[in-house]
Amino acid sequence: MTDNTFGTLFSFTSFGESHGPAIGCVVDGVPPRLPLSAADIQPYLDRRKPGQNRFVTQRREADEVEILSGTYEGHTTGTPIGLLIRNTDQRSKDYGEIANQFRPGHADYTYQEKYGIRDHRGGGRSSARETAMRVAAGAIADITLKHILGEAFCIRASVIQIGPHAIDPSRFCVDEIDNNPFFCGDAIAAQEWEAYLDDVRKSGSSAGAILEVVATGIPAGLGQPIYGKLDAEIASAMMGINAAKGVEIGSGFGLSSLPGTDAAMRCGLELMVLNSPQTTLAVF
Amino acid sequence: MTDNTFGTLFSFTSFGESHGPAIGCVVDGVPPRLPLSAADIQPYLDRRKPGQNRFVTQRREADEVEILSGTYEGHTTGTPIGLLIRNTDQRSKDYGEIANQFRPGHADYTYQEKYGIRDHRGGGRSSARETAMRVAAGAIADITLKHILGEAFCIRASVIQIGPHAIDPSRFCVDEIDNNPFFCGDAIAAQEWEAYLDDVRKSGSSAGAILEVVATGIPAGLGQPIYGKLDAEIASAMMGINAAKGVEIGSGFGLSSLPGTDAAMRCGLELMVLNSPQTTLAVF
Amino acid sequence: MTDNTFGTLFSFTSFGESHGPAIGCVVDGVPPRLPLSAADIQPYLDRRKPGQNRFVTQRREADEVEILSGTYEGHTTGTPIGLLIRNTDQRSKDYGEIANQFRPGHADYTYQEKYGIRDHRGGGRSSARETAMRVAAGAIADITLKHILGEAFCIRASVIQIGPHAIDPSRFCVDEIDNNPFFCGDAIAAQEWEAYLDDVRKSGSSAGAILEVVATGIPAGLGQPIYGKLDAEIASAMMGINAAKGVEIGSGFGLSSLPGTDAAMRCGLELMVLNSPQTTLAVF
Amino acid sequence: MTDNTFGTLFSFTSFGESHGPAIGCVVDGVPPRLPLSAADIQPYLDRRKPGQNRFVTQRREADEVEILSGTYEGHTTGTPIGLLIRNTDQRSKDYGEIANQFRPGHADYTYQEKYGIRDHRGGGRSSARETAMRVAAGAIADITLKHILGEAFCIRASVIQIGPHAIDPSRFCVDEIDNNPFFCGDAIAAQEWEAYLDDVRKSGSSAGAILEVVATGIPAGLGQPIYGKLDAEIASAMMGINAAKGVEIGSGFGLSSLPGTDAAMRCGLELMVLNSPQTTLAVF
Repeated sequence: MTDNTFGTLFSFTSFGESHGPAIGCVVDGVPPRLPLSAADIQPYLDRRKPGQNRFVTQRREADEVEILSGTYEGHTTGTPIGLLIRNTDQRSKDYGEIANQFRPGHADYTYQEKYGIRDHRGGGRSSARETAMRVAAGAIADITLKHILGEAFCIRASVIQIGPHAIDPSRFCVDEIDNNPFFCGDAIAAQEWEAYLDDVRKSGSSAGAILEVVATGIPAGLGQPIYGKLDAEIASAMMGINAAKGVEIGSGFGLSSLPGTDAAMRCGLELMVLNSPQTTLAVF
Repeated sequence: MTDNTFGTLFSFTSFGESHGPAIGCVVDGVPPRLPLSAADIQPYLDRRKPGQNRFVTQRREADEVEILSGTYEGHTTGTPIGLLIRNTDQRSKDYGEIANQFRPGHADYTYQEKYGIRDHRGGGRSSARETAMRVAAGAIADITLKHILGEAFCIRASVIQIGPHAIDPSRFCVDEIDNNPFFCGDAIAAQEWEAYLDDVRKSGSSAGAILEVVATGIPAGLGQPIYGKLDAEIASAMMGINAAKGVEIGSGFGLSSLPGTDAAMRCGLELMVLNSPQTTLAVF
Repeated sequence: MTDNTFGTLFSFTSFGESHGPAIGCVVDGVPPRLPLSAADIQPYLDRRKPGQNRFVTQRREADEVEILSGTYEGHTTGTPIGLLIRNTDQRSKDYGEIANQFRPGHADYTYQEKYGIRDHRGGGRSSARETAMRVAAGAIADITLKHILGEAFCIRASVIQIGPHAIDPSRFCVDEIDNNPFFCGDAIAAQEWEAYLDDVRKSGSSAGAILEVVATGIPAGLGQPIYGKLDAEIASAMMGINAAKGVEIGSGFGLSSLPGTDAAMRCGLELMVLNSPQTTLAVF
Repeated sequence: MTDNTFGTLFSFTSFGESHGPAIGCVVDGVPPRLPLSAADIQPYLDRRKPGQNRFVTQRREADEVEILSGTYEGHTTGTPIGLLIRNTDQRSKDYGEIANQFRPGHADYTYQEKYGIRDHRGGGRSSARETAMRVAAGAIADITLKHILGEAFCIRASVIQIGPHAIDPSRFCVDEIDNNPFFCGDAIAAQEWEAYLDDVRKSGSSAGAILEVVATGIPAGLGQPIYGKLDAEIASAMMGINAAKGVEIGSGFGLSSLPGTDAAMRCGLELMVLNSPQTTLAVF
């Protein structure tokens, strides 16, 4: 089934396992005559690149993206854009012991039950490595939207909680996000997280996190009604990411504790927000 | 676009406005030779029926469903099942003043911006009335799954919080759910909610709620990987419901506060849960 | 599966059996603010209506279409349009003997093999009665295209061969099409067919036909490339009609007998034709 | 839009231009635990390979396919299979003059009108080179079907007419198909074609052809009803091939000249044929 495809008018189809020869995707529906080269996509992948500090996976990958089709003389042509990243640091020996056991909280067991076979190396297809192609396709989406919506359009994400430690929203500063290894807008929280995560690592454990995504400059009426509504599409996209277990739009679950009049007003603002100036979304 | 269609192998396509002549849907992909008549679907609609107590919309609708196709001599034939409910209590005069204003927290503004026209009566297409067809199609899905999975399969929902008042999980009892107007498994909480909601109504406001859905007897490996994974499909379906603003699977956002080892173990259990004995999902 | 749905941006989903209570469809993707009422769709259905002369099925159906949703004060709103036609002349007794036999050249056997059950009355779902909903949805498509493309747009069909008797293209006149019971543009051929078909009926047999569809005023570049190209979509739509067994675009099979230079030139003209002034398509 | 994707349960998404760095595709829905390596796909591509005799395009391509994902230790895993073929003989200088002119009977003009830009080299995306990925995906489909349906399943194609010269069906022999450069089952016709095509080439022209595809061992009830019926899917797939302008199922257009009783009987046989022992399809 076409479950490795996401989207309708703008869509992408991805393939690739953690330790196979390569990962890649086909991005369809990109408007023609857009300036686009691999150098435009690479910075998005570089921000995601593993092994950049001691807090993330130590796998070393250059993650150099190659454009295989869909552009001509530095511009998109409207035809599907094939993207390819060769896997280089496959280190599959490191995963040898996993062949015979199922890791709790991972998809190993499910894949084995579903298919009766699995590429266990690094999680195979269920590896977070798959998200590299979401980033590559997302880069083209971002470039396309900037082209269509102009400078008003901006989408940014940051981590707002690691383990039990949330940021203090009053200290949040967009410019801070790229100044620490956590993509955190609160410099003080980032320092706390550093100490916290060092402890967690020493204890042989790890930690969860909550992210916030904010988009501005979105036109009202974006998305389709009912089953294809923007909230639903966002929820589907977020929950498809490995280990994501919750999605909120705007005030989310918090709305349930508010009187309806306040909630309606806040939700009304967030709805205008969702449809017009700014969309906020938290995802675990 | 086909955004009024949900699902792939089992799908349904709905139509209808709050105050139009009728609402209906086409359910496709139902297996043949299943016993099915309108009387099998009606009880699901009766539980949802508006106007049954003072805590819900006072609209009076019989919501009698008619099967227009897809069955022969009381059994499904594998062809699409057309369902129809005539609107009877349309009371569109009651909504006259809404023609000229946008209600906060509703889709009125968005529809007007998107289409340049809207059927304002009761929210038109964006009315919660649309969910009646989700219930009708869901009834057929439930009947189909019971037929395929047998007695082990069960899916149940209950309300676990209204306003700031959550249930006490230690008092939860499945048999209690149908004993109060709130579908609440905690009898004491249901009483508190009754008092709370009377106050809220008197103050001219309303309240939010959190629901929990639990499915048991689900085979491992259900759903597709990556963009079509079960979590993502559930999140999309839930967030497409009017006013839903958050979805959690299993422990959801709470997982972020746990040490990774605990979270992995719990998530592992919930994953087995998600794929095998029981799925829990909270939705605002 | 969603195989009772056709189309992507403009789509329709149909349901209904020949002798069930009703047939209907949901048309999605219709632009908002288009004038539309049942009276606009009815003339298309009236041209198709059975029982109008001795050369077609003698079933008597008023085929009165009802719009159930998607319009407000005589205009489309962008929401899905539900259409319903009640079956009145069901005469299922006439088909009693078919329950126990498979008609050659019909889908009876296939349905029975596929589903293990079938509504045999009049072919059930595989009846040509299903095409009434194609006509209703097609009416809305035609109205929509006329609105978008203006007066230059025209699509017309006529019968160009019945049995072994083809029209003489030099005698073809558009105005003649509605002057005979065969939708034939050649008055002399229509007379021949009348005599031929009377003979055929007396011998207890029937006859095949070839239709030609011509569209003018189509913008260049319509349709998607590769698997979604206009030729492919047209072929799929035509071949989905009961008993259709062949589709040609432009000169079709005849091109194979031409020298490549002539064929390329003709095909080039027809391609421009396909994409710009006029599209011709023959379907058996 | 996802118009570079074909199929639902078994689907493939292709990318690549005639003279870009590479062509490729993603095949989704392949069952797990199927033996599969590049060596299994290569023979299909070798039969299609350009430059093998003087009657086809003189482009030289090794067309070596690489499997990038979806297999583990020589077996499919149920995850999407990424396939890649590097273009080697791109010779884009040869096409320099085409940048400034539109070739009759080609898609150049349409692409330019639709996208306002095109990769003119060798037709870019509209090149017949795209069919290499159909062959690669088709190879996996063929291997999958052989695995599922067993030895009874066979699908074969041959050329039955070139220019005005058709084969004599009484001389047709399956074993002959691979003995001549035309995939022709009639050895005498193949000789005639050789002489005919030498003349055509000398005159600077080319020729059209008609192919016949026959499948045996197909189970009854394959395909979906109505808009997704097997005839419609086949017609769509065939008409999506470059330069294909006609499709017939079984006796096709010829049926229109037969009395209905004969046609129904033949069509009944062909329908059983279509659904059970053997499917025949001619495509120009």
